[in-house]
Amino acid sequence: MSFDAVLKDIEAQEAAYINVLRESVRIRSLSSAAQHRPDCVTMAEWLKAKIKAISSEAKIEFVSVPYKEKLPTGEELELPPIILTTLAPIDPKKRTLLVYGHYDVQPAEMSDGWDTDPWDLIELPNGELRGRGSTDDKGPIVGWINMIESYKRVGRDIPVNFKFVFEGMEESGSVGFDDTVKLVASKSDFFKDIDFCCISDNYWISTKKPCLTYGLRGLCSVQMEVTGGKADLHSGSFGGMMYQPMDDLMALFQGLKDENENILIAGLQDEIMPITDEEKARYKDIYYDLEGVKKQQGVTKLRDEDDLTKMLMNIWRLPSLTVHGIEGAFSEPGFKTVIPRRVVGKFSIRLVPNMTTETVERLVREHLEKKFASRNSPNRLQLTIGTGRWYYCEPTSPVFKAAERATELIHNVKPDFTREGGSIPITLTLKELTGQDVVLLPMGRGDDGAHSQNEKLDRSNYLLGMKTYAAFLEELSR
Amino acid sequence: MSFDAVLKDIEAQEAAYINVLRESVRIRSLSSAAQHRPDCVTMAEWLKAKIKAISSEAKIEFVSVPYKEKLPTGEELELPPIILTTLAPIDPKKRTLLVYGHYDVQPAEMSDGWDTDPWDLIELPNGELRGRGSTDDKGPIVGWINMIESYKRVGRDIPVNFKFVFEGMEESGSVGFDDTVKLVASKSDFFKDIDFCCISDNYWISTKKPCLTYGLRGLCSVQMEVTGGKADLHSGSFGGMMYQPMDDLMALFQGLKDENENILIAGLQDEIMPITDEEKARYKDIYYDLEGVKKQQGVTKLRDEDDLTKMLMNIWRLPSLTVHGIEGAFSEPGFKTVIPRRVVGKFSIRLVPNMTTETVERLVREHLEKKFASRNSPNRLQLTIGTGRWYYCEPTSPVFKAAERATELIHNVKPDFTREGGSIPITLTLKELTGQDVVLLPMGRGDDGAHSQNEKLDRSNYLLGMKTYAAFLEELSR
Repeated sequence: MSFDAVLKDIEAQEAAYINVLRESVRIRSLSSAAQHRPDCVTMAEWLKAKIKAISSEAKIEFVSVPYKEKLPTGEELELPPIILTTLAPIDPKKRTLLVYGHYDVQPAEMSDGWDTDPWDLIELPNGELRGRGSTDDKGPIVGWINMIESYKRVGRDIPVNFKFVFEGMEESGSVGFDDTVKLVASKSDFFKDIDFCCISDNYWISTKKPCLTYGLRGLCSVQMEVTGGKADLHSGSFGGMMYQPMDDLMALFQGLKDENENILIAGLQDEIMPITDEEKARYKDIYYDLEGVKKQQGVTKLRDEDDLTKMLMNIWRLPSLTVHGIEGAFSEPGFKTVIPRRVVGKFSIRLVPNMTTETVERLVREHLEKKFASRNSPNRLQLTIGTGRWYYCEPTSPVFKAAERATELIHNVKPDFTREGGSIPITLTLKELTGQDVVLLPMGRGDDGAHSQNEKLDRSNYLLGMKTYAAFLEELSR
Repeated sequence: MSFDAVLKDIEAQEAAYINVLRESVRIRSLSSAAQHRPDCVTMAEWLKAKIKAISSEAKIEFVSVPYKEKLPTGEELELPPIILTTLAPIDPKKRTLLVYGHYDVQPAEMSDGWDTDPWDLIELPNGELRGRGSTDDKGPIVGWINMIESYKRVGRDIPVNFKFVFEGMEESGSVGFDDTVKLVASKSDFFKDIDFCCISDNYWISTKKPCLTYGLRGLCSVQMEVTGGKADLHSGSFGGMMYQPMDDLMALFQGLKDENENILIAGLQDEIMPITDEEKARYKDIYYDLEGVKKQQGVTKLRDEDDLTKMLMNIWRLPSLTVHGIEGAFSEPGFKTVIPRRVVGKFSIRLVPNMTTETVERLVREHLEKKFASRNSPNRLQLTIGTGRWYYCEPTSPVFKAAERATELIHNVKPDFTREGGSIPITLTLKELTGQDVVLLPMGRGDDGAHSQNEKLDRSNYLLGMKTYAAFLEELSR
């Protein structure tokens, strides 16, 4: 059968493929919340069944992480399985593509400000498919499986050998992933003889033009737990007498960065990769809908918006620091005149080439411990720091060329070559394990609202995304 | 019947009176949460029924606050009624005592760290009656009513004319109370011809020795709402590009005070009343169980613990500032790499003589608005500031003498004369309306954990407290 038949089948199956995505969204596979860990396992089982249904001979392995997740509370939690899949049959004459995706999602509650139930994928009149995980990353992983299903249904030979690696801890720093896949690589052939690597877990930088991504920021997540006495206290009876944990915490939050987003942790900015002329040139002609983004987000000003190159560099090649919130303090509406006994401040730094995670972790720890020590507080500080690596490659290898041609064929436009502010820490691991560059081939748009309220994936992006995946396989086999 | 019969009846009714307290604790009259406002009304109705049961001729009036509470969200909420009670019959030959109490309580959840259900009063083997509101302030108000019941049951004439004023918004800054009682005072005789005022809404400063209190700190509660765009955002995709509301908020939290608890808001410390020799002398010989408090609270150090006078001054006659928490930021366990769109930072300052609430509110507002303006942030700042007044009087008037003799009679020890770090803003209002000093006659102990997890009232304090109330009435009539 012709390649065109595959594309036609994807179109014909649109409603069915949306239903498959809806099924997956319904499973609340939050990796950050202990009580949803069983849902992550359910999601892994669901994926296994889906793959079995399209390829009964596929080799599907659930690999357990060889240790447990340690929560800041001291509790230990079983980690969700890493799913390794090899579609059968393997044809030694074909080249082999490895695709990575993740089946866990960010937290979501109606009370966060969702307009509809985040766990019920609904289709809006404008074509948006709204639901938690629709674009990050259930749409893409379900899309790859659907696309293979269309090949099978129309009876066209799949042009490459195909492997998946799906994990369930991406939204929580991919705890255990690196160690486990390295162990797998040392004991089995799964990561051997891979010719191409691809990840669909990022977004176009606009709502209109597709892109291919050759760089990602890393992540350093920091939890600063300050513990005082045995119980929360009345701020009238004890304010002025107690060494309040919140005072220590607010001091730790101070002086992390200046108003120009320069991080003030000594030594950290020194690690930023100097820019080359080649890199500078790549920032020209990037399509970015500045006014559209501002309108979409409801803001009047973006940092360095008068200089698009500078603005993009801020999110692509410079670190940024975000304070996320505080656990244990009063967080409800209204007022409670309480001195919280235990507070956990949370911030993260997006890392860029050439920062090493070891150096960043050490510098952050030194900075915070020094600051805390200078206060002579009788309270106790406990730091929990997680790190994930950035990724960067020159976007010139065959896998990028194939993705570029596939995108152009389906979307009728040459994609932009972009970097990305978000993190997929395991990208560098995949490159190291396989020796191949990784192309990031996004399915969703820049306004999809990953991690946010009303996350969505446009129906057309879902459909064209699956078609682009198919075209990509064809191009890789040329 | 003799006074002794009243004391004996209180003893005989101990189990029944504990059951009455249990009934009242069961009603979740949280004033700070909109969804519990109906429970506050239920609590008011419950009190009315209790008073009617002991004095069917009592005049009980529910006074509505003539406006609604405005929440930071813009929502408007009906306020709980202020209950004015005059026990009958009025005897013009007797003097008149006015007692104030509040029937609302602080929030409480098992997840805050309670060991038992906060809404189910339980009695521990050590005699603690544990439950939200047991000591603050349901124990005392129920105690007053029980004590009157004992007078009625044994048939002893109540030695004074008796009035109650109970409010339901004390834990939320007594919104509407001042305005409403001033309106009542201008239209009726309720606050006329009052000879004595008493409040039982504070605590011994230790666990062993009773005290009478002649001063309270006031409160300035501040909510700083910073709003950015339309939705929470992915900190990878947007970190470095967005002006993050949390950055503005953390800057506002900076520089509020130094490490010695000096408040750095310009002009605020200038308002502190200079100390006199008489006041200084009163700090001597106060019983304070420093090691007991440290052990109880599980802390190794208190501020200025080497100098008891200085330590007490820190909570009695100097302002203190507490950061309570942030609404709208990520506050769950785990990690969420989000840029929150709208965050509300909450702190409060305990006010002392001679700070005026008008000046404090102006200085706080100016300080925060100036700081915010200096950041040139495109985000929006909205301040919501509430204030409550401090109270101070010389503890020498007849009402203090009567309370001192009553305490000595029941507890066999002379009480300490103390001030208190907490706030009962309406104390000054009562003094202004009646022209009388207000004695604070605490029922509970310093370790009761008002506003905290596992709040309790000791059974012996409940019992001896009711007896002290009775002795107080007798002393007032001499």
